[in-house]
Amino acid sequence: MALVLAEHSNEPVDVSRVIRMLLLHDLVEIDAGDTPAFGAQGDKEILEARAAERIFGMLPPDQREMCLELWEEFECSETPEARFANAIDRVMPSFQNIRNRGGSWIDFNVDRTRADARLTPIAEGSETLWNVVRGILDEAEAKGYLKGNES
Amino acid sequence: MALVLAEHSNEPVDVSRVIRMLLLHDLVEIDAGDTPAFGAQGDKEILEARAAERIFGMLPPDQREMCLELWEEFECSETPEARFANAIDRVMPSFQNIRNRGGSWIDFNVDRTRADARLTPIAEGSETLWNVVRGILDEAEAKGYLKGNES
Repeated sequence: MALVLAEHSNEPVDVSRVIRMLLLHDLVEIDAGDTPAFGAQGDKEILEARAAERIFGMLPPDQREMCLELWEEFECSETPEARFANAIDRVMPSFQNIRNRGGSWIDFNVDRTRADARLTPIAEGSETLWNVVRGILDEAEAKGYLKGNES
Repeated sequence: MALVLAEHSNEPVDVSRVIRMLLLHDLVEIDAGDTPAFGAQGDKEILEARAAERIFGMLPPDQREMCLELWEEFECSETPEARFANAIDRVMPSFQNIRNRGGSWIDFNVDRTRADARLTPIAEGSETLWNVVRGILDEAEAKGYLKGNES
């Protein structure tokens, strides 16, 4: 997904670094136990930091540093590559949920405000992708997959 | 795995291309339905070629070409990157099987001759990795996970 959508990043990115960040980030989530985006976040940050130290700590020092740096860069989301990688990571569940009768939006009883809060950071990596996702959220709300704002 | 083991490739490789090949190759296997390495191979090649055309065919022409070329390069295994990517792809099941009381070697009643035939191409990508795998195969034979040669 990163490979074919890279041209929609707000800023030019080195796609290879984006792909490495996404892969390493998923390894850490697998080790820590993935926390659903709309579930209780609990000790997620602490568990993932420990997992990163544990698994990358098995590598020789130079590779340990390279992996930890890429993982931290992804987590901080302050470089063009990290912003775009985070956008890709957040986009995917929307594509799944709209095809899956609401998926995790239904499971966690999510309303539009919470979905927006989770997904607006996509715009920091790609305005284009955020516009697509906003359209998906509109459709999801219309179909009742996503509760309307309770205001 | 490709990222941290690239220094053991027989020839210098562009790791980013190796990673792309492995990712695209797995997408095609997911779409075609993965055929276990030691099971009947059936129409594997035809099904995978059709899957590659189908899924990469959804992309704009330039990206379709890029993906098909990388996939074909992996399948032909005639460049340094493709040889190393194929080595990585073949190494992984050995690591799983030795940790998993024989895994697919037991499931498919594999003997040492068939395991060697499947795994010796690793040496074309990395002599170092092949030496490690040969040690694993010796251990697997000693533990009875892999039948000895019937000769």
